[in-house]
Amino acid sequence: MKAAIGVDIGGTSLKFAVVDQEGRVLRERTAATPSHGGANSIMSEMLAGIDSLLADMRASAPDVPIEGIGIGAAGQIDAKDGSVAFAVDTIPGWTGTPIRRLTAERFPALPVYVDNDVNVLALAEKYYGAGKNARHFVCVALGTGIGGAIVQDGAIVHGAYGGAGELGHLSVDFNGPRCSCGNFGCLELYASGSGIHRLLADMFDGLSPPAWELNAAGLLSAWERGDAAAAEVMDVVLGALGSAFASIIHALNPEAIIVGGGMLDRVPALLPAIERATAPRTSPAMWKHVKLLPALSGNRSGVIGAAAQVWHHSP
Amino acid sequence: MKAAIGVDIGGTSLKFAVVDQEGRVLRERTAATPSHGGANSIMSEMLAGIDSLLADMRASAPDVPIEGIGIGAAGQIDAKDGSVAFAVDTIPGWTGTPIRRLTAERFPALPVYVDNDVNVLALAEKYYGAGKNARHFVCVALGTGIGGAIVQDGAIVHGAYGGAGELGHLSVDFNGPRCSCGNFGCLELYASGSGIHRLLADMFDGLSPPAWELNAAGLLSAWERGDAAAAEVMDVVLGALGSAFASIIHALNPEAIIVGGGMLDRVPALLPAIERATAPRTSPAMWKHVKLLPALSGNRSGVIGAAAQVWHHSP
Repeated sequence: MKAAIGVDIGGTSLKFAVVDQEGRVLRERTAATPSHGGANSIMSEMLAGIDSLLADMRASAPDVPIEGIGIGAAGQIDAKDGSVAFAVDTIPGWTGTPIRRLTAERFPALPVYVDNDVNVLALAEKYYGAGKNARHFVCVALGTGIGGAIVQDGAIVHGAYGGAGELGHLSVDFNGPRCSCGNFGCLELYASGSGIHRLLADMFDGLSPPAWELNAAGLLSAWERGDAAAAEVMDVVLGALGSAFASIIHALNPEAIIVGGGMLDRVPALLPAIERATAPRTSPAMWKHVKLLPALSGNRSGVIGAAAQVWHHSP
Repeated sequence: MKAAIGVDIGGTSLKFAVVDQEGRVLRERTAATPSHGGANSIMSEMLAGIDSLLADMRASAPDVPIEGIGIGAAGQIDAKDGSVAFAVDTIPGWTGTPIRRLTAERFPALPVYVDNDVNVLALAEKYYGAGKNARHFVCVALGTGIGGAIVQDGAIVHGAYGGAGELGHLSVDFNGPRCSCGNFGCLELYASGSGIHRLLADMFDGLSPPAWELNAAGLLSAWERGDAAAAEVMDVVLGALGSAFASIIHALNPEAIIVGGGMLDRVPALLPAIERATAPRTSPAMWKHVKLLPALSGNRSGVIGAAAQVWHHSP
């Protein structure tokens, strides 16, 4: 048996695991992300977490060789040098952080790979999930924001420096509200947790609010219960998602779109609803060849995909 | 010197050329596309055209070996079996036409390659044009419709069966008018020749029309002259283009977007205008790494790119 360290650096938590080549988690630990302390605190916490897992393995499973460290991190990651090419300001100073260099300095005996958090989810899907039988697929993660990853001919599409896959920033309304990326009417403004919050505030502005809480969780539960006002809002959310999914299909002709993220974990009925919104918007020739599939459930996919880089990194 | 036959099957004309490995055209001929006769007539005309070029070469340049036949065709092409996976009804019966099989049966000694017309333009750019120095780029052709091609890590992105690259069908307004593809508010409805026609009819409906003709050529000339009404319409056209280009950049992180097609050939000022519309809509980190470049001019790129498949086809 061979194993690797997988690390998932998110805005809320740092997840660590020892994962074997079949994607099984042998050890794991979690720490809160010290975001307030900025990039330096996160890197210290991360290096300490790896250290402790390695020590644990040396003590309890000295016969299992650890072959490398794979890291998935929020933000646009330069997959070649393993640094943060760009990140929003949720983590002060995160942009520019040389994650790979700092990790390799601390653990010089181990190869280190770093990629964007959704790209490593796509690796988990490719080797252990719904992407197993597809050469060309796309992952979409519907959470507080919307992340994406594109796999073409079996390899993650990184683009010029690793920024590719920002599918939450497909504009679905060029006359819509301005997005933090600079564009107008990005998908994320209509169909992410934070976008739904904005949408609800907008739609119920000056009106008496419904009985349910004006956020994504409230909306989704009310919609599942058959609430009429929620259904109206969901027409907008699903219209934006259906249009963006059809755009993705027309642009990339994938065999599958694998959909995951916090929103889908909570409300699985969202996937068939997205499918019903996407089908009539897609050219029949392309629709015939594509499937919408649920992502691996549970929140271990991040560490499993991160570790998979050690054996399956793109050049 | 080695050469190949390049064929460009368009809705209006069939173009044929003998092209050498440096992309130089040694012989060429053109025939009107017998669209009214349907797929059978087009295939007969095409095979006759290839035959005549081969006879010409045998007689006048017997020392130049012809190494294969490369064909670029309108419609969604299955690049693996060289058939038409899907085409709109401009050419009756075009969907399903086994272009490669029919061509190979007639010329059994020569390898035959078939791809979408914009994908072969991208090959021309990659080997002889603005794509020479880029590993990751996108081509957009602005004409009667809007075509696209994606090159990632040096290879054309075909997707599941060869349908990828339909960038005219990125939705830029999910509440917009219905498109023939099924989606709403596709880029093509706002920024292609036919889309601009529709847009103008819509915007001047019930109003006294301006002095210029209500079509793309009329609009673009009036806009170049500084006409105020034309500038207002162009705000919409350029808004749609800028949003779609920013979406493409966010999704694919390309090093370059190469822009060509009839509209740009006629009005080169369109490219800097698209650039001004795209820049503020794009995340600065991605914008820093991308260039908007003009496509090879002239209408020989189709045959040159088609022929290039013989030496540079994707697996």
